[in-house]
Amino acid sequence: MIFSSSLLENAVNEFARLPGIGKKTALRLVLHLLKLETSEVERFSETMAKMRNEIQFCSKCHNISDAPVCQICASSSRQKQLICVVESIREVIAIESTQQYNGLYHVLGGVISPLDGIGADQLNITSLITRVEQEKIEELIFALSPTIQGDTTIYYIQRKLQPLSVKVTTIARGIAFGGELEYADEMTLARSLANRQPIDHYVRNA
Amino acid sequence: MIFSSSLLENAVNEFARLPGIGKKTALRLVLHLLKLETSEVERFSETMAKMRNEIQFCSKCHNISDAPVCQICASSSRQKQLICVVESIREVIAIESTQQYNGLYHVLGGVISPLDGIGADQLNITSLITRVEQEKIEELIFALSPTIQGDTTIYYIQRKLQPLSVKVTTIARGIAFGGELEYADEMTLARSLANRQPIDHYVRNA
Repeated sequence: MIFSSSLLENAVNEFARLPGIGKKTALRLVLHLLKLETSEVERFSETMAKMRNEIQFCSKCHNISDAPVCQICASSSRQKQLICVVESIREVIAIESTQQYNGLYHVLGGVISPLDGIGADQLNITSLITRVEQEKIEELIFALSPTIQGDTTIYYIQRKLQPLSVKVTTIARGIAFGGELEYADEMTLARSLANRQPIDHYVRNA
Repeated sequence: MIFSSSLLENAVNEFARLPGIGKKTALRLVLHLLKLETSEVERFSETMAKMRNEIQFCSKCHNISDAPVCQICASSSRQKQLICVVESIREVIAIESTQQYNGLYHVLGGVISPLDGIGADQLNITSLITRVEQEKIEELIFALSPTIQGDTTIYYIQRKLQPLSVKVTTIARGIAFGGELEYADEMTLARSLANRQPIDHYVRNA
């Protein structure tokens, strides 16, 4: 693309650096910004800079936070004996959006993946063990990706936790609501058969 | 979506205001910005604010510009007797990117469309007529959308130009390179038959 304005070109290039945004989409977004009021574009810019400058990570659960301890850890209405272990902030947002979970979280920052050079030391595992030891945690719920890396991570942490008397569970794997049996992969279908549930339990939880 | 940080939530909402960006894409983009260095996010923010604050529109052709007169109008290597009439800056960028056109432009700012409340007065038509009168323009090339609105606009401007001796042309309509005949609409196919060209002309221009 050839631009006759370097201001425009720089703005398009900045947008095109973002993941999944090509040059054409970037141009569309920049032309949209040009149509907005100057004050609106300034608010957009300031929001991004402020977010990057001021955001913190919760010192307890490593979730994204506006303060040294996040809203969830600081809340008095949360069940403090329950921790859901997730890979990233995305899963915290996804689970919070269900409005069905009332415990705390622990963000690992990834899963053990030797091929990608990610070992247990790079993840927030030590702080998790410390929390379980010190905060009288009763149950850890693992909500990690259903991959070999996710399973390895669960196995690794579970071994570390063996000296402590804490219940360890993992979220149910199975056929999604609205999912078609014939399109489910064999692993999921096999696990959903193995973990079949009595109908009354199913109805009670529906 | 439920966020545990208002800084994050505000940033996601700002991105989600942009056209074609939903909440999930906005979150992906914001999480990407969070991974970047603070200085990189500041550069992103400043580029957008600077672009919106400092960009100008060329006083001659209404193209986007860093200065009162755009690079194209100011260039000494351009053919000053040739004007390509386009709807918006997008078309200027598209035609410039072919690197095959060496004349000037005139950005109308849209096409006449009574249903959308856009009349000739809202477009940069008067300034086009003035340019043709004062700048010894030899040819106007219309590169507007192949729609009824585009054709109406060409017809309207052409009538205004009749007292002046200027050649008026329109870019060729036809089957695109790599396009399949059977999928072309009837209008395009009919026009491409009517405007058929001798093979030697075709080969000469290829």
